[in-house]
Amino acid sequence: MGREGEEFSLLLELLKLLSESEKITPTIAERELGLTREEYETLVSVLKKYFMLREEKDTVILYRGDNLKALHPWGWNYVYRIIVGSTMNMARKFPPWSVVIAEYQVYGKGRHGKTWIGSLGGLWVTYKIRLQAHLAQFLPIAVPVLLTRILGEQFKMNALIKWPNDIVVKDKKLAGILVEAEASGSDMMGYIGLGVNINNDPPLETATSLKELIGSLVPRNRVCSKLTGWISRIDKLVEKPELLRLEYLEKLSTLGKRVRIMVKDGEIVGNATSISELGELIVETASGSVKVSSSEALKVIHLD
Amino acid sequence: MGREGEEFSLLLELLKLLSESEKITPTIAERELGLTREEYETLVSVLKKYFMLREEKDTVILYRGDNLKALHPWGWNYVYRIIVGSTMNMARKFPPWSVVIAEYQVYGKGRHGKTWIGSLGGLWVTYKIRLQAHLAQFLPIAVPVLLTRILGEQFKMNALIKWPNDIVVKDKKLAGILVEAEASGSDMMGYIGLGVNINNDPPLETATSLKELIGSLVPRNRVCSKLTGWISRIDKLVEKPELLRLEYLEKLSTLGKRVRIMVKDGEIVGNATSISELGELIVETASGSVKVSSSEALKVIHLD
Repeated sequence: MGREGEEFSLLLELLKLLSESEKITPTIAERELGLTREEYETLVSVLKKYFMLREEKDTVILYRGDNLKALHPWGWNYVYRIIVGSTMNMARKFPPWSVVIAEYQVYGKGRHGKTWIGSLGGLWVTYKIRLQAHLAQFLPIAVPVLLTRILGEQFKMNALIKWPNDIVVKDKKLAGILVEAEASGSDMMGYIGLGVNINNDPPLETATSLKELIGSLVPRNRVCSKLTGWISRIDKLVEKPELLRLEYLEKLSTLGKRVRIMVKDGEIVGNATSISELGELIVETASGSVKVSSSEALKVIHLD
Repeated sequence: MGREGEEFSLLLELLKLLSESEKITPTIAERELGLTREEYETLVSVLKKYFMLREEKDTVILYRGDNLKALHPWGWNYVYRIIVGSTMNMARKFPPWSVVIAEYQVYGKGRHGKTWIGSLGGLWVTYKIRLQAHLAQFLPIAVPVLLTRILGEQFKMNALIKWPNDIVVKDKKLAGILVEAEASGSDMMGYIGLGVNINNDPPLETATSLKELIGSLVPRNRVCSKLTGWISRIDKLVEKPELLRLEYLEKLSTLGKRVRIMVKDGEIVGNATSISELGELIVETASGSVKVSSSEALKVIHLD
């Protein structure tokens, strides 16, 4: 595409029409967006790489199972947008038990302000929940565990956790998790941000997508429904924190690995041996044992 | 702006909110678009260059006279969009006496497929009208004349016509005109496309804007209302074609000038001496008199 920025905006408009009516024709594209047939076909051919579209004569139809707008998660306040700054930030203005999903995040952030490369066809979602303060501490353990479970059950993926926030398959990043919490009276407001590479093309060599792993486009609503279901019952998941912790450690690919961890003023190199009660990674270095918290770790590299 | 394409899309979303409710606050921007205050302020500072915004405490207000969405041209079917391929193409799907306006055209075309550089803050409009076949031939003369009249009356601009399709002030392009017509029974369907540099920043040295000429932002609806009024009565304007032709010739800056005209297989250089009945430019070249039609002329350069 030549003038990428402008065409990208048009692509999002086309996606908006598709998500609203689940179909589009050259006539609708001409009427609503002033596109010639050729311009329309070029844009549709781009969308086809990232969304489950099928063609019936002149009509392009978005498969309902891949239409995030069509989701109506039971018991949740559902907010769907085509493009936002970030779902994490947007969720702040909504009540607890809101799900905020956007097709595209311009300022979507992972930890420490690093940019999440959120491309078309991925799942970019923030769940805002309210829970008892003593349960909130388990979210950073519970969320990666439930995501690996879903990937295993639904797609037979052997998904592992790369400390602290990534889900990896075959050592490549498939998802990122961002958990934040703030006090709300005697309870906590938890923000669970997830970026899952489903049908998008992550531009990094070190990342992969379900589309790439499976070899075909995947209906995103399947992942999203399962996620929402699990998060609705997250208090059940954290009821037995010892079991949860065991499962977490079992799936933690970082353990036993030699790691290089970038921190603010340098790096820590050593063997990752365990996780503290507070979720810090314990690294045996040449100069002794070091505890690294997830907020300190800017980047974690597995050296073997 | 760093990632221009993505941020441009967000900018258009913000403009959409502004045009719909004529105001925006950091809270609305957070709720609707997931923007932090800082992101919001950066985007608003960009919009301020192209749209008449004023601030009251935390609220940014779009001046109604610059809100094209607020126009309700009497007797016209009004179609307003934020971003389209081209208004010219979009107008085809609407009945005659439709006005199609977009804040941004991605594939907006001048003659011969050249790209119009349509930036934010300009007026990009297509009027679709029905008129008697014998009147349609005068549109290429009538439209530039009425636009120069409006610029003179409203802004005291000495606007001239650069053959065949440009309106210039101080030898710089202020507007482009594209007229197309198609038979519709015994009548003609006329498409009058106009691109007027009002508050946008045309990226070419050879172009200017009302903003630049006047030194401040101009309420676009003033230009658009006048245009619509004149085009509503365009049959009156072409009732006396001789007078119209005189006014056209009077304002035609190309006449008497030495010109270089790019055509498909070369160029024509000579003195522009007159206009034929059919609107062709008559050029006296070293090898004799040549008639050039507007459809042949790819580019016209005034050499003095």
